[in-house]
Amino acid sequence: MPVGTLATVKALDPSDLTAMGATMILANAYHLHLRPGDDLVKEMGGLHRFMQWDGPMLTDSGGFQVFSLATLRKISEDGVEFQSHIDGSRRFFTPETVIGIQRNLGADVIMQFDHVIPGQSDETSARDASERSIRWAARCLAEFQRSTTSAIEPQALFPIVQGGIHPHLRSEAARVLADMHQWEGFGIGGLSVGEEKPAMYEILDMMGETLPRDRPRYLMGVGFPEDVIEGIKRGVDLFDCVAPTRMGRNGAAFTSDGRLNIKRAEYRNDPKPLDETCDCSACARFSRAYIRHLFVSDEILGHRLLSLHNVHFLLSLARAARREIAGGNLDAWSLDWLARYHSTSPTQ
Amino acid sequence: MPVGTLATVKALDPSDLTAMGATMILANAYHLHLRPGDDLVKEMGGLHRFMQWDGPMLTDSGGFQVFSLATLRKISEDGVEFQSHIDGSRRFFTPETVIGIQRNLGADVIMQFDHVIPGQSDETSARDASERSIRWAARCLAEFQRSTTSAIEPQALFPIVQGGIHPHLRSEAARVLADMHQWEGFGIGGLSVGEEKPAMYEILDMMGETLPRDRPRYLMGVGFPEDVIEGIKRGVDLFDCVAPTRMGRNGAAFTSDGRLNIKRAEYRNDPKPLDETCDCSACARFSRAYIRHLFVSDEILGHRLLSLHNVHFLLSLARAARREIAGGNLDAWSLDWLARYHSTSPTQ
Repeated sequence: MPVGTLATVKALDPSDLTAMGATMILANAYHLHLRPGDDLVKEMGGLHRFMQWDGPMLTDSGGFQVFSLATLRKISEDGVEFQSHIDGSRRFFTPETVIGIQRNLGADVIMQFDHVIPGQSDETSARDASERSIRWAARCLAEFQRSTTSAIEPQALFPIVQGGIHPHLRSEAARVLADMHQWEGFGIGGLSVGEEKPAMYEILDMMGETLPRDRPRYLMGVGFPEDVIEGIKRGVDLFDCVAPTRMGRNGAAFTSDGRLNIKRAEYRNDPKPLDETCDCSACARFSRAYIRHLFVSDEILGHRLLSLHNVHFLLSLARAARREIAGGNLDAWSLDWLARYHSTSPTQ
Repeated sequence: MPVGTLATVKALDPSDLTAMGATMILANAYHLHLRPGDDLVKEMGGLHRFMQWDGPMLTDSGGFQVFSLATLRKISEDGVEFQSHIDGSRRFFTPETVIGIQRNLGADVIMQFDHVIPGQSDETSARDASERSIRWAARCLAEFQRSTTSAIEPQALFPIVQGGIHPHLRSEAARVLADMHQWEGFGIGGLSVGEEKPAMYEILDMMGETLPRDRPRYLMGVGFPEDVIEGIKRGVDLFDCVAPTRMGRNGAAFTSDGRLNIKRAEYRNDPKPLDETCDCSACARFSRAYIRHLFVSDEILGHRLLSLHNVHFLLSLARAARREIAGGNLDAWSLDWLARYHSTSPTQ
């Protein structure tokens, strides 16, 4: 899912996403609550209409943002008091208010409010956060069942499995959540937040075996191409990450031979496309030399072209993985793909 | 002509321009000489290929930039010594070097190097600059005839009529230039550079009568919708102006009821498009409320949508004027159009 934090996938037009074959996008409850306000989005007919995206859409609950962006947090069992990163105003998020915000926004999939902790947290804090997240999942579910949405289509609520890098906390959380309700899908939170990769893969292995097999699993905030492949191998169905657009605005491009920084002098007169194996509309038309010129000159089209390429790259990767799963060849394909991706990495 | 100063019409993609029906665009010799360098553009196959625009294209000679942007100018009969506005490096432009730069860039229409002065200049300086521009036109022509282009298509060279707001200087320049050569078109320079509007219209009236009727006339650096209409009424065929994209990036939109500043609080929950009479792809999809949100949040899509709308607005205006000329109704139509445009101007 390309990420449209503030109801726009940065530097791209919804028509670009459609043209690239994006099927589902993400927006963010925390950011949209602060600006322009979920009440305004509701007044304007909901998020789909506001940003003119008529495909599936998911809103993140704001748990991650409240625990990472906002300042002066005061965490209690009831919820989290924090200051807006925009104007310092004091806000209070509870499981119930966060469901209310996401009801106003009207995305197709909404997420429970969860307690997110750093990746390296010890077992005591991880247990505390995981158990609170489970209690909050129950409160979110009750509020979800009590409330109605302004959206035309019914919404689905996903709980979020927490538990840090501690496998038994994760499996316990997955079991308790699965017993709580017939959810339409599950979020896997609190990964890719500072822990080592092997620890993340171990948790994903375990999640793949523990979560109900007939429900989609959404690995939140992940990822980079290699993480997407490792996640897919472990049964993950949905991903989101700001990396393709954020890196794109910084001049970094994914290629099948690794990452490339277009601002480097070596590309000054390079007539090749960003990635010779790519069929995105940037690679079909423009040279590295031109895109480098756009970045050196701080031209918006540079941000657009690299964002477009990077999002297309990840969507194509997911499509390729789907084909390989259908063909029964995912493991061999992914080993080849990763070997090539890691072999050169021309300019990290 | 939408302006692509640095080989990109700011915030837009060439495919947007094609979709809007843009037929000819402009780039700038001064800017491209400094960055990325006209030699590099030549090496990459010329401007059309570099920026992927396969329609007609014109490059401005840099006269305006050298006399307005660059610092520490030293003007002599041979040319102008100046410092680059980017790195302060010392440069020397002559009629011959400027033709060389434009030969490298390879646009379809290239402009002579001219001596541009402020709009209110007195007759002595205006005469001096006009006569120098005429001598430089002859040198540009000689260099043009001597040199060859790397472009696939042959290039056309336009001279530029100067003479400030002094009608007899203008008519004299037009006569001398027309006698010098069978040019394929004429530039009208040094207008919209600080003089009063009536003075500009007086000069345009006179130019309309003096310049050869079978050659296109290009009013350089103009303009705003009202200036385009006044120019067309006086026989101008080509215009360029950074206003639609620059204003677009600043949040200002042209509408048939005047200018609108999308950042104003009154548009916070306005479900209407920027201009209800407009069929651009921004107005067909997005509300003022959404575009205002993009600007308040400093999102690139806001710059894109307003640039797109403003460029579309001017292209539509030119197409409408062409229809009215064909129908013999230009005068009545333009009076109505201007009356509506000036009647409300909701938010200047």
